[in-house]
Amino acid sequence: MTTDGDKEVSEGTAVRRGRRGGGREAKRARAAAGSAREPWITRSLPYFEVVNEEGLALIEANADTILEEIGIDFRDDAEALEMWRDAGAAIDGERVRFPRGLCRKLVQDTAPREFMQYARNPANNVMIGGDRTVMVPAYGPPFVRDMDKGRRYATLEDFENFVKLTYMSKSLHHSGGTLCEPTDVPVTKRHLDMVYAHMRYSDKPFMGSVTAPSRAEDTVAMSKLLFGDDFHDPATGVERTVVINLINANSPMVFDETMLGAAKVYARNNQACIISPFILAGAMSPVTVAGTAAQILAEALAGMAFTQLVRPGAPVVFGTFASSVSMQSGAPTFGSPEPALVMYIAAALARRIGVPFRSGGGLCASKLPDAQAAYEAANTLQSAALAGVNFMLHTAGWLEGGLVMGYEKFMLDADQASMVATLLRGVDLSENGQALDAIREVGPGNHYLGCAHTQANFQDAFWRSSQADSNSFEQWESEGAMDAATRANRSWKAQLASYEAPAMDPAVDEALIDYIKGRKASMSDAEH
Amino acid sequence: MTTDGDKEVSEGTAVRRGRRGGGREAKRARAAAGSAREPWITRSLPYFEVVNEEGLALIEANADTILEEIGIDFRDDAEALEMWRDAGAAIDGERVRFPRGLCRKLVQDTAPREFMQYARNPANNVMIGGDRTVMVPAYGPPFVRDMDKGRRYATLEDFENFVKLTYMSKSLHHSGGTLCEPTDVPVTKRHLDMVYAHMRYSDKPFMGSVTAPSRAEDTVAMSKLLFGDDFHDPATGVERTVVINLINANSPMVFDETMLGAAKVYARNNQACIISPFILAGAMSPVTVAGTAAQILAEALAGMAFTQLVRPGAPVVFGTFASSVSMQSGAPTFGSPEPALVMYIAAALARRIGVPFRSGGGLCASKLPDAQAAYEAANTLQSAALAGVNFMLHTAGWLEGGLVMGYEKFMLDADQASMVATLLRGVDLSENGQALDAIREVGPGNHYLGCAHTQANFQDAFWRSSQADSNSFEQWESEGAMDAATRANRSWKAQLASYEAPAMDPAVDEALIDYIKGRKASMSDAEH
Repeated sequence: MTTDGDKEVSEGTAVRRGRRGGGREAKRARAAAGSAREPWITRSLPYFEVVNEEGLALIEANADTILEEIGIDFRDDAEALEMWRDAGAAIDGERVRFPRGLCRKLVQDTAPREFMQYARNPANNVMIGGDRTVMVPAYGPPFVRDMDKGRRYATLEDFENFVKLTYMSKSLHHSGGTLCEPTDVPVTKRHLDMVYAHMRYSDKPFMGSVTAPSRAEDTVAMSKLLFGDDFHDPATGVERTVVINLINANSPMVFDETMLGAAKVYARNNQACIISPFILAGAMSPVTVAGTAAQILAEALAGMAFTQLVRPGAPVVFGTFASSVSMQSGAPTFGSPEPALVMYIAAALARRIGVPFRSGGGLCASKLPDAQAAYEAANTLQSAALAGVNFMLHTAGWLEGGLVMGYEKFMLDADQASMVATLLRGVDLSENGQALDAIREVGPGNHYLGCAHTQANFQDAFWRSSQADSNSFEQWESEGAMDAATRANRSWKAQLASYEAPAMDPAVDEALIDYIKGRKASMSDAEH
Repeated sequence: MTTDGDKEVSEGTAVRRGRRGGGREAKRARAAAGSAREPWITRSLPYFEVVNEEGLALIEANADTILEEIGIDFRDDAEALEMWRDAGAAIDGERVRFPRGLCRKLVQDTAPREFMQYARNPANNVMIGGDRTVMVPAYGPPFVRDMDKGRRYATLEDFENFVKLTYMSKSLHHSGGTLCEPTDVPVTKRHLDMVYAHMRYSDKPFMGSVTAPSRAEDTVAMSKLLFGDDFHDPATGVERTVVINLINANSPMVFDETMLGAAKVYARNNQACIISPFILAGAMSPVTVAGTAAQILAEALAGMAFTQLVRPGAPVVFGTFASSVSMQSGAPTFGSPEPALVMYIAAALARRIGVPFRSGGGLCASKLPDAQAAYEAANTLQSAALAGVNFMLHTAGWLEGGLVMGYEKFMLDADQASMVATLLRGVDLSENGQALDAIREVGPGNHYLGCAHTQANFQDAFWRSSQADSNSFEQWESEGAMDAATRANRSWKAQLASYEAPAMDPAVDEALIDYIKGRKASMSDAEH
């Protein structure tokens, strides 16, 4: 499937054993592809810490108290309870209580600090964890919105469109998962079409189905067809991680059989699980930041430890999605300060465990790609960037609390994602960065536009937005006085019009299509 | 003018001598006014530092090199050159070169770390510096925009409208200065109407005129009329700081006679100067972050030290306005990462000197209050908040690179300012904040909405936006499917309709009006 399997082998081995990676792999991946695009962001900017070591230790102690005293429900999964009993936890019905430190030890003993998710194009492999950030589009919306047709149920065509737009985006490193729900395909079957679309219309890494263990099995089976011999590391025979999967906790403090079942399938196959407490604070967690953070840590530790019971060493990510609810209306709110503080703390807690962290993205409650949407999205994106999110789900497209995938919002958010890449590069303190010679050359009262240092650096000097209009009022007016959404509307249409699918071996494509046909033939269309 | 002059005396004295202030004064001010409104934000959140101590020391050394080798021009002001000669600087024409460390020593020896700016309503006094943030509207636009009448030259009525909207805003602590240029009043005279509007239609602290030394003198004279006996501290006879003023450097490395003249008037009267390099990086500074930061520090140090030569102990603020220009079109851009990095560094440099810091606000290049405006404004506001800006000019209303004051943008930005106040409060790690009892009470699978801890905390639990719509799609649609700008349009109109002027002693009002009449009669209407 790939042109330089040997190189991949050595990389994959090094990463899994030595818990190292980063710039070196990035450079190799770029060299392999002959492309200047960065396959992920490598951060030089420090992390922003909102509480000190003592505060983090307090929250960790509280999480241990939750795990020990209150416990976590593992529902409708006798096998999971058995595994926990064997590991030394106390079982009371479906409630599992954990000796202090047990979950942390299970995770730290075997979970990788960082791991490579392979793509069918090795230039698009992503390292997840450490000082890296991988930008991923929004996940889960049943609706889409664009300026032409408004808000409507999403279809498979919409899904494919967002795969294509993500494939073409320079700032999004990952194809994501449920970019929107293709509601024109029965629930029982749509996962097959979604996984196929990621495989066929993109060559970036993607996410698998988690809505039933059998759908997780389908995802793994199709991945084996796609990657062929490359699914296993030829040197070790170990499965490569080619798919990453969103396992939500049913907060507060419950994992249900669907999510446990999917997690087991993926972990057993060495595929990555993101264990994500899904929190609307005030409803599913306390109304305070520190209380919410402790509960999130307890849930994430229990879920991550469970994956290590299933298969020690399986890649796992500490995830969190935290919003707060309006205590007046009950509606979830976004871009507000409390969830940002929760995210900063959770990122720091993940670093202390030594696992990758997922959160963030362009979250908003707004129905339209308007100023509200942008304030809220920017607030979340800034926090996620400074917090140190490694896998930034929901980076682009999110509207209306996640109910809607917006075409225009997608383009605007993806532009902001490219801004984050520059921000995270941090400050260049080299001699060229200090630019003292430029200041000497120019001197008081003159300008820098023509000086030697500016000439040498201007092309990469400043981040350039592809969506913002910074021209004069007069020029902007003469070009139609468009607002940002209108420009984004033109932009996604132009992108889709110029889309070209990445090449795929026809035999592989045929095998995938045959598999889907066979599976669909065995299923009813009943919605469940 | 005030009802409790005695209390003010003791506060003012303590602040100036002991270089202390903060929560205690805030509480007293609130008690005096019988109001729950916070007169400023007191920060508990840590600062975000983007370079380490070593990096900051390197930039400081480079600034000293600039001051020593290259020097700063003090133009058309023989008195300034004489003062610098006496202070030990080397004078070469209008070029001043400074022995290493001289400017820093002058500032650190006598400039206050923080100071109180008095308002005619003592509940609105603001402490500037330390761990405090004061939110201030945009400054300087010749145009205004609203959704009804579009973009047009600003008038005195617009100016008064923004004084009133700022007066009514809970999140803006300061009336600001040139909220917009009242272009229907001759340039020679409009400063009198602007200062009067701040004095008459608000009782928050305000900024003075800097466009000519005589206009600074007018500002001081009118302030003496407004404050009467309260203009001086009765215990010490020292002038109180009742006005703060924006002194821009003419970057690179020039101060001109207008700004020097205004700075001298204000400093001599113990009024505050904000020494602000105004930088479009790439044109007025190098195209790099570290080079721009070193130049900003050199300019700010020279300007701040100058105020201390004029009057040791005069309150002074390290200011910076940094944008970058598009190296393609030359247009200034906003909300981009490089100016944010410059701001983080400049804030840290100001803390190391021990002076208050001004920057930040809702900057944007967008012509409309659309998604572009909001992404850019939020990016700047987040950076300014985390950097530790003390005096956040341009917080609300800014559009089109500062050419336009937007009515709708103003309301949206002011809402974001209230979000920042909550963010800066940081994380509550008290027992109530930890909320372990809530987690115990609720347990796995239940919800927190009705639990005792939620009931006790829900009213202040989460920041509430006054502009965002977080309701369901159906409710939003039934209420008119308004975008954020449309809601803001209704909002500013409702605010203005309910405006009531703060009471003013008729004798003071008459004295101010008489002063303005006399001054206007002595002037020509010629525009200069």
